[in-house]
Amino acid sequence: MNAPLPAHVLPTAERRPVPVAMLTALQAQFGERCSTARAVCDQHGRDEGTYPLTPPDAVVFCESTQDVAAVVALAHEHAVPVIPFGVGSSLEGHLLAVQGGVSIDLSRMNRIVALQPDDLTVTVQPGVTREQLNREIKDTGLFFPIDPGANASLGGMTATRASGTNAVRYGTMRENVLGLQVVTATGEVIKTGTRAKKSSAGYDLTRLFVGSEGTLGVMTEITLKLYPLPEAVSAAVCHFPSIDAAVRTTIQIIQMGVPIARCELLDANAIRAVNRHSKLSLREAPMLLMEFHGSPAGVQEQAETVQAIAQEFGGDQFDWATTPEARTKLWTARHQAYFAAIQTRPGCRCLSTDTCVPISALAESIDASIAEAEAAGLPYWIVGHVGDGNFHLSYLLDPNDPSEMATAERLSEQMVQRAIRLQGTCTGEHGIGLHKMGYLVDEAGAGAVAVMREIKRALDPKNILNPGKVVAM
Amino acid sequence: MNAPLPAHVLPTAERRPVPVAMLTALQAQFGERCSTARAVCDQHGRDEGTYPLTPPDAVVFCESTQDVAAVVALAHEHAVPVIPFGVGSSLEGHLLAVQGGVSIDLSRMNRIVALQPDDLTVTVQPGVTREQLNREIKDTGLFFPIDPGANASLGGMTATRASGTNAVRYGTMRENVLGLQVVTATGEVIKTGTRAKKSSAGYDLTRLFVGSEGTLGVMTEITLKLYPLPEAVSAAVCHFPSIDAAVRTTIQIIQMGVPIARCELLDANAIRAVNRHSKLSLREAPMLLMEFHGSPAGVQEQAETVQAIAQEFGGDQFDWATTPEARTKLWTARHQAYFAAIQTRPGCRCLSTDTCVPISALAESIDASIAEAEAAGLPYWIVGHVGDGNFHLSYLLDPNDPSEMATAERLSEQMVQRAIRLQGTCTGEHGIGLHKMGYLVDEAGAGAVAVMREIKRALDPKNILNPGKVVAM
Repeated sequence: MNAPLPAHVLPTAERRPVPVAMLTALQAQFGERCSTARAVCDQHGRDEGTYPLTPPDAVVFCESTQDVAAVVALAHEHAVPVIPFGVGSSLEGHLLAVQGGVSIDLSRMNRIVALQPDDLTVTVQPGVTREQLNREIKDTGLFFPIDPGANASLGGMTATRASGTNAVRYGTMRENVLGLQVVTATGEVIKTGTRAKKSSAGYDLTRLFVGSEGTLGVMTEITLKLYPLPEAVSAAVCHFPSIDAAVRTTIQIIQMGVPIARCELLDANAIRAVNRHSKLSLREAPMLLMEFHGSPAGVQEQAETVQAIAQEFGGDQFDWATTPEARTKLWTARHQAYFAAIQTRPGCRCLSTDTCVPISALAESIDASIAEAEAAGLPYWIVGHVGDGNFHLSYLLDPNDPSEMATAERLSEQMVQRAIRLQGTCTGEHGIGLHKMGYLVDEAGAGAVAVMREIKRALDPKNILNPGKVVAM
Repeated sequence: MNAPLPAHVLPTAERRPVPVAMLTALQAQFGERCSTARAVCDQHGRDEGTYPLTPPDAVVFCESTQDVAAVVALAHEHAVPVIPFGVGSSLEGHLLAVQGGVSIDLSRMNRIVALQPDDLTVTVQPGVTREQLNREIKDTGLFFPIDPGANASLGGMTATRASGTNAVRYGTMRENVLGLQVVTATGEVIKTGTRAKKSSAGYDLTRLFVGSEGTLGVMTEITLKLYPLPEAVSAAVCHFPSIDAAVRTTIQIIQMGVPIARCELLDANAIRAVNRHSKLSLREAPMLLMEFHGSPAGVQEQAETVQAIAQEFGGDQFDWATTPEARTKLWTARHQAYFAAIQTRPGCRCLSTDTCVPISALAESIDASIAEAEAAGLPYWIVGHVGDGNFHLSYLLDPNDPSEMATAERLSEQMVQRAIRLQGTCTGEHGIGLHKMGYLVDEAGAGAVAVMREIKRALDPKNILNPGKVVAM
């Protein structure tokens, strides 16, 4: 078993500061779009996780693929780290400049490059956020379903292989990225994939870059699948006598093959925070928040099947939200659960776990994790994309109390090792970043990680692409 | 534009024969399971494509992962090629021993290793065929949907990223392989993926090996997703006044998001061959052969929607096959189309094209290909997984007439270049093999192919894993 790297302890890595010659070249080319201002660097030196601030030496605000290629080519020449940055919503230390270097801010690359409604495809720049995309394509009658909660950039979502609600029906970024434009470690621009729905043409570079967390290349265009907006959408909440009952309902929904579109678990702690933050009056008991997509008859049929299963496990009558406004209110509350929970303990940091297990192991996985959290006495809350076997148990921690941080880290490790024993994964959707590099070895084995490292070395021989993450060299 | 390698011309590559020391070691370890008999080697030196016989120097019938690891370790020591072999049903020259070496026959590794019906997962050895898998899991109420027509091995299907009928609803091998056990180039055994439905843990090695055609490792276990058998299944045929009408119907089905399970096109030539071979009496006019999966009400709803679309384009009333026997008869006929067509021209070889395009470009792609085939005067037939934008135009060729082979190759090249112009792919499901290495460069660009080559070099520095295919070194 490999010691994990505690989320609040930075690895000691040699810094590779930006040499003056490179900085001069960047400033000459980018002018004010290259910044070394303290505030700007600090803003690019943290994410939503528990690591301390670790700023880069400079930030370049790129506006085109050519901009990115120019920065990377210079970085390659000078063997300086580059770290792609979207909106900063990741959780495992992905964005921290542990070896210094240049943050490549992609937020200004926020254009839809091409939209082909007849093919159900769109190509976007990496700084487009998921909410922006859905707003801009609204008139086509199509939507992009992947929804990790945060209004993340599509570049960041691709880089972390994000998923969230809706993945139970529509898949994750793995299934929904058709192709990419990528700047490689030397600053060359390549493309991967095509707009065809499937292909057997050579190695699947698209899926190698998806989830590579900026360590193999910088993505500058992303071609995505879109889906027709369902004819009918209904959301329902259903309360259960216990978390176990809600989880067992979920397991049976999945085993029966019901094409449920969203199946989210919230525990009483999460609901309490959400009620206060979003001024709702949901009953503070374990709850499934579900959504059904399809024809009106299909939606009704799915809902009846699920209601029957829920009743077997003691679930209440469904409480429906059929109007778009009612649904939006519910899902907005769900998406704000993270911030709602943080506000229940002022000044806290949040350590969010992220295991995913085969569906039949979900009850064991959640039940044991709750027992451990209760025994430890730390404030916690649970939300989960349980239809996928994925849940988050999040601890609210006093950043000035090392013992709380250490306890949370120990609980997290127990959960991860249990997920691995149950043939699941140490991260369903947050990624490896800094935090889970040791767990990656536990999960995949030294042999597979050695293969990952060979790939990293082949594609980034100077180790400039987000170094020190995923598979540190 | 890169010159393709015509399917009937072998590349000239230096042979790397098996040295006596290695052969002695193989014979000592494997006894009769290591064969150099002419008939055995010949059987492993061809596929269903048009290339001439190119046998390996020896064949080892492996029965375990340890067997495979031992062969590969020896091959690595002696820098000798190894070529994994399933049932020999591939089409692009994948199996040919163009540099000599050892064929690793995996057909005896045909056990289901683990079946977890509650998780909708199964782990199989690579020699299990798709029909065998579905037979063996029948009692669980689950099925594995991927169906390339041939009763291929799951190892071969994984290696070529196969799809076929059903992919329009259930995805391809890309979406349905959860994890792998792989013997790497040094003979080490690694595992990739987990049984969790999704994961963000590190580089997606699973999808790197899926579709790598034996050039990056030898897969020895494959973990697959299974699906609940649909409550209701209906198949229907619908005839159209023209191929264009059938294709335009398909385009609209997909654009409307109908979750059709199978949507296959057959032209009059294919139907004529199928009628004769399978003693059917289908009308010899362009036809869609469709299947709908779901609840009884859902299936009926889908069928009504599709029937309405078909009528707009002049399609006939559906002819239904609702009993399992009637459906089996239809699908068996569809699956035998290849052999049925070959029998219409005794002694012929078949060159089968395999482009896949964005759905809106499908009509243009098929119409232009037919016009070219008609002008050239070669006997041809068409089947297509048109719901995915994928179709096969197949020429029946006299292997002793070089001008026919050259004409078919020219027509194939025109189709491929058109697919690439339309932002599609040179191969939807057959793979690159020997035949399409030039087209891979046209499609992906020199930069992306260079990245593929770097990966190949990193994972197989001695170039022993199915050398000379996909990205020849």
